Amino acid sequence: MAEKGVLIVVSGFSGAGKGTIVKKIVSESPELSLSISMTTREPREGEVDGKSYFFVSKERFEEAISNGELLEFATFVGNYYGTPRKYVEEMISQGKDVILEIEMQGAIQVKTRFPEAILIFVTPPSAHELKRRLTERGTEDEATINKRMYRAYEESEFIDRYDYLLVNDDLDKCVEELHGLIEASHHKPDCSSGLLKKINEELKEYI
Amino acid sequence: MAEKGVLIVVSGFSGAGKGTIVKKIVSESPELSLSISMTTREPREGEVDGKSYFFVSKERFEEAISNGELLEFATFVGNYYGTPRKYVEEMISQGKDVILEIEMQGAIQVKTRFPEAILIFVTPPSAHELKRRLTERGTEDEATINKRMYRAYEESEFIDRYDYLLVNDDLDKCVEELHGLIEASHHKPDCSSGLLKKINEELKEYI
Repeated sequence: MAEKGVLIVVSGFSGAGKGTIVKKIVSESPELSLSISMTTREPREGEVDGKSYFFVSKERFEEAISNGELLEFATFVGNYYGTPRKYVEEMISQGKDVILEIEMQGAIQVKTRFPEAILIFVTPPSAHELKRRLTERGTEDEATINKRMYRAYEESEFIDRYDYLLVNDDLDKCVEELHGLIEASHHKPDCSSGLLKKINEELKEYI
Repeated sequence: MAEKGVLIVVSGFSGAGKGTIVKKIVSESPELSLSISMTTREPREGEVDGKSYFFVSKERFEEAISNGELLEFATFVGNYYGTPRKYVEEMISQGKDVILEIEMQGAIQVKTRFPEAILIFVTPPSAHELKRRLTERGTEDEATINKRMYRAYEESEFIDRYDYLLVNDDLDKCVEELHGLIEASHHKPDCSSGLLKKINEELKEYI
């Protein structure tokens, strides 16, 4: 186990398959857990506070915003959703990795507030393939799909803000590559700050 | 093969075993080549210009410095040694990786002039182990070893400038981890700039 874990933030074009990738890697990795969001929406049947979400009041959420307790937040259909820093930091300090699937704007918010986060962008091998996947789903009309393609265009201008790019051509290969990126991230000096401090202390003997 | 290769810069405490690691990984990786230095020293028997080194005059070297042709340079026993940007860029644009073993000051110079470079620092698992390895070599007296330990102390203050840390406890494991770091580096968006530009162009259709 690593001395410290990492926060992995996964974004990607709508239709790139990031949800499937995240689900698969979490099921394969005992040391990797999904980030738990804070929200003001009501719990649904079977949802457990502190497991599915941290369910809070609007006042408590706004307090969390002003206290800087959130790595990012957004509103959706009249409710707040956000990523509490505390849960992420607790897991990471125990040597566990946390994965957060989130859209680009949230990912960039996270990076400014938590620069150690590793940002990964998932793309299909071409725009044509993206359109094909969105069309194949069969759940959306042409106009909605074109809106998603336009959104993809906007996002494509900011991919250089990400640490890593994953081309999702083959699911298994893509998940394997993601394992490799997480493994590499454990080699960031920040993940071994305890060891580095110890070596630095030991070397002081030679000053 | 990656669309673009990466420049891997390896530094580490004297005695950390970085030379052995670099030699082993180069012998194992056909897509990875050692950087070729420019120098003003005389060629030795058997050395080939453009292969062992780029042998140049002092005037030519100083011209290279003022033209910004070098990623870093230093003097050693009355001669200049430096890393030409051109060779690195040529290899990288062909999708090949270049590895450069260099001390910390040079590595930090490289990073300022070539921010895409991946800086990797090699350390033994403890200062005690570092001392043991230096002593075991049997080539240096106590005073010289203590000087190296002091130099290690100075360097230990700057390890956070590196992208990745490699703890060299076991050579084979360490080389395998280095392979993983190089593989991960190929996922930097910069290494797929052609693909990203293509996708961006294709998506413009939906504006």
